[in-house]
Amino acid sequence: MSERTFSVPRGMRDFDAQEMAKRLWLNEKIVSVMERCGFQIVEPTSIENLETLEAKSGPEIKDEIYYFADKAGRNLGLRFDLTVGMTRMIVNRPDLPEPIKICALSGMWRYDEPQFARYRHFYQWDAEVYGTIEQEADAEVIALGMDILESVELRDYEVRVSNRKFAEGFLRQLGVTGEERIEQAIRTIDKYRKISADEFEDEFRKIGLSDDLLLKTSEIISLKGPADRVLASIPNEYTKSEMSSKGHKELSRLFDLLEDFGKLEKCVIDLSVVRGIGYYDGIVFEAYDKGGEDVGAIFGGGRYDKLCGLYGRREVPATGVAGGIERLMISLERASLFPELTQGPKVFATAVDEQSRPKVVKLVTELRKKGIPCDFDMKGRTLKKQLEYADSMKIPIAVILGPREIERGVVKIRTMKTHVETEVRMDELAEEVERRLQ
Amino acid sequence: MSERTFSVPRGMRDFDAQEMAKRLWLNEKIVSVMERCGFQIVEPTSIENLETLEAKSGPEIKDEIYYFADKAGRNLGLRFDLTVGMTRMIVNRPDLPEPIKICALSGMWRYDEPQFARYRHFYQWDAEVYGTIEQEADAEVIALGMDILESVELRDYEVRVSNRKFAEGFLRQLGVTGEERIEQAIRTIDKYRKISADEFEDEFRKIGLSDDLLLKTSEIISLKGPADRVLASIPNEYTKSEMSSKGHKELSRLFDLLEDFGKLEKCVIDLSVVRGIGYYDGIVFEAYDKGGEDVGAIFGGGRYDKLCGLYGRREVPATGVAGGIERLMISLERASLFPELTQGPKVFATAVDEQSRPKVVKLVTELRKKGIPCDFDMKGRTLKKQLEYADSMKIPIAVILGPREIERGVVKIRTMKTHVETEVRMDELAEEVERRLQ
Repeated sequence: MSERTFSVPRGMRDFDAQEMAKRLWLNEKIVSVMERCGFQIVEPTSIENLETLEAKSGPEIKDEIYYFADKAGRNLGLRFDLTVGMTRMIVNRPDLPEPIKICALSGMWRYDEPQFARYRHFYQWDAEVYGTIEQEADAEVIALGMDILESVELRDYEVRVSNRKFAEGFLRQLGVTGEERIEQAIRTIDKYRKISADEFEDEFRKIGLSDDLLLKTSEIISLKGPADRVLASIPNEYTKSEMSSKGHKELSRLFDLLEDFGKLEKCVIDLSVVRGIGYYDGIVFEAYDKGGEDVGAIFGGGRYDKLCGLYGRREVPATGVAGGIERLMISLERASLFPELTQGPKVFATAVDEQSRPKVVKLVTELRKKGIPCDFDMKGRTLKKQLEYADSMKIPIAVILGPREIERGVVKIRTMKTHVETEVRMDELAEEVERRLQ
Repeated sequence: MSERTFSVPRGMRDFDAQEMAKRLWLNEKIVSVMERCGFQIVEPTSIENLETLEAKSGPEIKDEIYYFADKAGRNLGLRFDLTVGMTRMIVNRPDLPEPIKICALSGMWRYDEPQFARYRHFYQWDAEVYGTIEQEADAEVIALGMDILESVELRDYEVRVSNRKFAEGFLRQLGVTGEERIEQAIRTIDKYRKISADEFEDEFRKIGLSDDLLLKTSEIISLKGPADRVLASIPNEYTKSEMSSKGHKELSRLFDLLEDFGKLEKCVIDLSVVRGIGYYDGIVFEAYDKGGEDVGAIFGGGRYDKLCGLYGRREVPATGVAGGIERLMISLERASLFPELTQGPKVFATAVDEQSRPKVVKLVTELRKKGIPCDFDMKGRTLKKQLEYADSMKIPIAVILGPREIERGVVKIRTMKTHVETEVRMDELAEEVERRLQ
């Protein structure tokens, strides 16, 4: 025997049977929503060429991911999201009719400092629409995210929507110039609701913008509420440029569509939402579980019409949504929304004596053939010990078979919780088990 | 736009919607068999400490896996199988009632030279029973593997069973001594049916064993056929030692159990089966698709009572089975056993004019709520183009909505293949769609 035990690396986890029961339940809910919204499941490669990962996020992405050289000296990295791979897949498939609606639910890796609700390997669901500039697609991915939350009965949430064209447009109108300066301002706005007012002012000044600019920006990005009210209260001077006006119109159209989708009630405009990452260029949104804002957005996304051009020889407009499985699980735990979930067999077939064991195996084989998860003793135990094991495994039904039962073509069936035993004919067992399991 | 396209690294792949449809179908079949046999799904961490991976297979495993140091200098590696992680998980859980029956279906990575049916990232299903020395568990995992093949209607296969105690026992009786020499002989025997007779003789002589020994070994390991015949034809002199006799008895008992499981017909004893890897120490088996022996065993496994002791402070006897998803897919393709599988919506709702579009969104929302995968136009296309898109996506049913239909509270429903259109009342649409989809 080893003198020591082997652990999992920092930030990594095993999922045991109980954890997996929850994940399987949740994944099934999510996949089923994505499917009924007309998305097709794909899975991009887990290992990408490092240059593919850098193309989206710049060489600084190396600080946040697992990367390594393989034995042939190729620079590779583990995927850090699903969007990169899905986008790369689409750009190489001009044969597919558009829009292309694909989705995935898979794991990814990031070299974050492990902290509450953050692991170095985690899962996301992700749904993307490629090939249309229309707002229908933006409304669709928001509605899909909301349907996922509704499908697990998480109802106390809010979707905060804005538009990057509008945000960049008004910054330019205010006199912020230069791509880098705009990007810094966007990154700062992204923190507006996450840091204190003082910290926000400091950050804003640090990028060299004036106090007048800070005041005007704050005036805009503090606007939050029902779409019609927010859209009406944006001062005219901020929608004069082509860009900000376009963003304003997109927001207005999007909310009309969200109404058609029956999703207006939980959607607000929040002009501080910009999604830090550089590639968004239209509608952006983030959903928050009101009982769990501390873990961050429960889903988020937006339009990125330029990303495809980065990965290939054609431009394909795109919009999408993604959410973290681990964060959603925390919300479900907090709101006690997981049903009681167990894995394992529903029936445990016991043998009264050695001679009955072959018959037990046959009976188990029959039940399994009928789709009933079923198990039997594999340790040569006494009947008492067999029933104790069934009990410790929380198996709801035991079947008891001995020479007397075999002779008469019957079995005893016992509901473990109540200890109530009845006899049924062997050929009626499966039916009786199914009746009791309902 | 980029001047180039980005590819996936050598040996890696994306799974597109068509490929995923097959995988999802197959995974569901496999998981459902594992569940009804009473196994609980788990998922061990994808990244392990390198020492964990080396503990099973020695430092030379580095040549075959992806490993790297993380930013804190820890030596890590991507898992190369599921057994290591599952075993590590169990050794640390003395609280679980035994036997512990767990399974997994997940991806893994190996730095193999890519070749037909071999990728550097691939998937396996894996079912393991921990905590019993009884042959019931060995029979169970063999039966499970066979049930998986039966569940996808792959029927032309053979399970070849042997026993490592018997193999090592007769080698020792023949005078082969020393752990290393035994291991070399076992590795050579593993190749018996994969290389020519001449090559086999060369290999055998290379490890310094005599021609007499070669003759006697060949006499034994060439034995293959129904269990009773093979067991009876093993010369008495080879079952005299405690070890070989134990192996012989285990084989005999196992085949009695396989008969109880109703699995005798496709199981044979093949004394050349030893499973190359060092840790097996009892029953060993390999299943071959008779139409695809070239891709190797379609599942395989055996008993490994010593491995748990390597990973922790307690010994736990264990037996298990695993099979490659990619190999199974090749067998299914060759035998044309995949059903026609498509992903994507079942209904495409079209709008005759602009004014009808909001109603179409509402209708789609209703159908989705009822669980019907449904989509609508997101590109502002004419009715004709909408129907063409539905056709190109192979969506079986189109729904057509215009002002005349809206006024009368009806919709047109069209079966795309036949072009037959009928009218149904709006509130009967879901029912009619379900009827047509059956």
